[in-house]
Amino acid sequence: MTDLYHEKLHQAQELLAAYDLDLWLIFVRETAEHTDPALKLLGHFSLTWPTAIVITRQGRALALTGLGDDEAVRHTGLFDEVRTYTQSIGPELVRLLSTYNPQRIGINISRSDVSADGLTYGMYLNLCDYLADTPYRERLVSAEQFVAALRSRKTPQEVDRLRAAADLSMRIFAAVGDFLRPGVSEYDVAAFAHAQTQAAGATTAWDPAHCPGLNAGPNSPWGHVGPSAEIVRPGEVFHMDFGVKLNDYCSDHQRVWYCLRPDEHEPPAEAQHAFNAVKTAIRAAAAAVRSGVVGWEIDAIARQTITAAGYPEYPHALGHQVGRSVHDGGVGFYPRWERYGDRPYGTIEAGMVLTLELGVRTRFGYISLEEEILVTADGCEWIGQPQEELWLIR
Amino acid sequence: MTDLYHEKLHQAQELLAAYDLDLWLIFVRETAEHTDPALKLLGHFSLTWPTAIVITRQGRALALTGLGDDEAVRHTGLFDEVRTYTQSIGPELVRLLSTYNPQRIGINISRSDVSADGLTYGMYLNLCDYLADTPYRERLVSAEQFVAALRSRKTPQEVDRLRAAADLSMRIFAAVGDFLRPGVSEYDVAAFAHAQTQAAGATTAWDPAHCPGLNAGPNSPWGHVGPSAEIVRPGEVFHMDFGVKLNDYCSDHQRVWYCLRPDEHEPPAEAQHAFNAVKTAIRAAAAAVRSGVVGWEIDAIARQTITAAGYPEYPHALGHQVGRSVHDGGVGFYPRWERYGDRPYGTIEAGMVLTLELGVRTRFGYISLEEEILVTADGCEWIGQPQEELWLIR
Repeated sequence: MTDLYHEKLHQAQELLAAYDLDLWLIFVRETAEHTDPALKLLGHFSLTWPTAIVITRQGRALALTGLGDDEAVRHTGLFDEVRTYTQSIGPELVRLLSTYNPQRIGINISRSDVSADGLTYGMYLNLCDYLADTPYRERLVSAEQFVAALRSRKTPQEVDRLRAAADLSMRIFAAVGDFLRPGVSEYDVAAFAHAQTQAAGATTAWDPAHCPGLNAGPNSPWGHVGPSAEIVRPGEVFHMDFGVKLNDYCSDHQRVWYCLRPDEHEPPAEAQHAFNAVKTAIRAAAAAVRSGVVGWEIDAIARQTITAAGYPEYPHALGHQVGRSVHDGGVGFYPRWERYGDRPYGTIEAGMVLTLELGVRTRFGYISLEEEILVTADGCEWIGQPQEELWLIR
Repeated sequence: MTDLYHEKLHQAQELLAAYDLDLWLIFVRETAEHTDPALKLLGHFSLTWPTAIVITRQGRALALTGLGDDEAVRHTGLFDEVRTYTQSIGPELVRLLSTYNPQRIGINISRSDVSADGLTYGMYLNLCDYLADTPYRERLVSAEQFVAALRSRKTPQEVDRLRAAADLSMRIFAAVGDFLRPGVSEYDVAAFAHAQTQAAGATTAWDPAHCPGLNAGPNSPWGHVGPSAEIVRPGEVFHMDFGVKLNDYCSDHQRVWYCLRPDEHEPPAEAQHAFNAVKTAIRAAAAAVRSGVVGWEIDAIARQTITAAGYPEYPHALGHQVGRSVHDGGVGFYPRWERYGDRPYGTIEAGMVLTLELGVRTRFGYISLEEEILVTADGCEWIGQPQEELWLIR
């Protein structure tokens, strides 16, 4: 089996033609301090000096590194050639480009997509200077569509890893469900989830200070924030936003429980209604997903469904891609808000893995769900098992 | 005692006046994917949506975040005010700037210094658009000198942490010395050093795949590369480039041993000569360091010393700063090579912590040393104990 990095490299070489690029140039330095998010699609690199990673439409992969950075790059086994320089990368870079004479050189700049925007402003200026007296200066174009496609179109190995991460998450949610009882605090649950994650050889999908995100009852702070001292209380809900990173790939789900009062046998109608509305909005969106739809239209379906049920709009997007990063860049189910740039207008394609997430605040607490789907030609499949019922804490 | 982040915040507010900036603007999004290296000087942030961190010369610290990112930022206790937006950061950002009407707004762009170059090209374009119809667009200037000063001028708490990291390194080098014997492989030493590091509650100062960097004998690959199967052999040297990160601050030293042959009681004169030449070059450079010298001149002293002793130039800089990152940005002892941009020309100031490092390749293997110094008004002090003798493996 081809390893994952070679699989992505071959995919990159095929996509260059599809996006009318002759050459993809990743230009980085001191990657421990500031790396290009696209670089990690090709491997785990630690580069000190200015470095050019070059993938050509002809199917060549080359690296130009400072002397001393070269051995580790060679050891990746990914490159047809690794060249070095000592005093300046500029002349060697021009020489390398001249070999291929590319008409369109893709570089990693994007206004909307952080994952395709790895070139810093200072490095962009340097690059322009190196190429100033060459024809290549005017041939630099944004590679954002190409990078988004490379990142978004999960290969079979990537989908397997995403499923494995989601399966682990499902097991941890189940264990948390057994752990929850009145009086347990958000801190307790976070520690429990961290221990479960570590025991499985995984890490949390995002900053462990904020993962899991927990909301016990209506007084817990909302948003990207860590656990608090709030506790599970009868008559309130408990909400958990959580994901793992397993074998370099992430999961991201939200689950919600209702803690029964001693005199209750089922959740109050108002809590049940909120759960059903959230679930229905997610299912309505999922039912409309297939390869070729436009992201914002799916967000709009969920947004209309939840407001029609009498709840306010959620103040975020319906869904983002999931991959090596929990927010994996590219298009998604984004509303047409300025903060999302042009990403709401992108086409959803088969092979993408995305979340569907929304919630409502109630007097019992935050009732919110998040599911993951794999887009197929004519629909989508769940990644992990979706939550069907409002789970109970007794 | 003021905590470290507040200490750096106050330092930032003082430095704004010194560098004639009215306001410092850090502009980021999705920091898990791509953060600004300068942001970590102020704290540990996980931000999803476009966010502006604003420090004013008047001594105010403000944050403008997407709704949902705000609670965690508020919890840092660092900000006088945290504002939020939902659909677009642009109008709120203009409103915030209007409150202070800054004449010079520092942003993180730098051609030479990765640590001061955290703004991506796409984010720069967005920022220019948001400010297009305001006077602020033309008031954006590079904050690189300011950022470099903030990062370089270590506070007393930072120096304490750097010393603690170096002390731990010294103990680990001593333990490695006891561990080394003929037949031990680079892999063995890396595993031993990792275990020692972990047991001390630290991590390696850089990518553990390349830290420690090890060279057993003359056939081990040179540069930023991980351990190999090469073993300690009598009649050869063993070289180790290693550092730890303890309490968020790094160390970085190189040490070297000679493995005696059964018939030897001291290293061969040729190995001893190389060690002395390397040590002498580092001491000559250290003797010239004081606040106010220019970086490249110190590099030149070491470079001349080692070539006068009959060895070739080292193909890298004499020294870089050490701090939160092992390569901590800013000025350093850089030769005037294009790849180092304008950094060789910078002034070395009291409070900076830097390395002095160089080596020579010999038929016994790579003989190289790296020491750390704290610059003072009239000289420098060692951070960690410098290596005085070529250590012996028996």
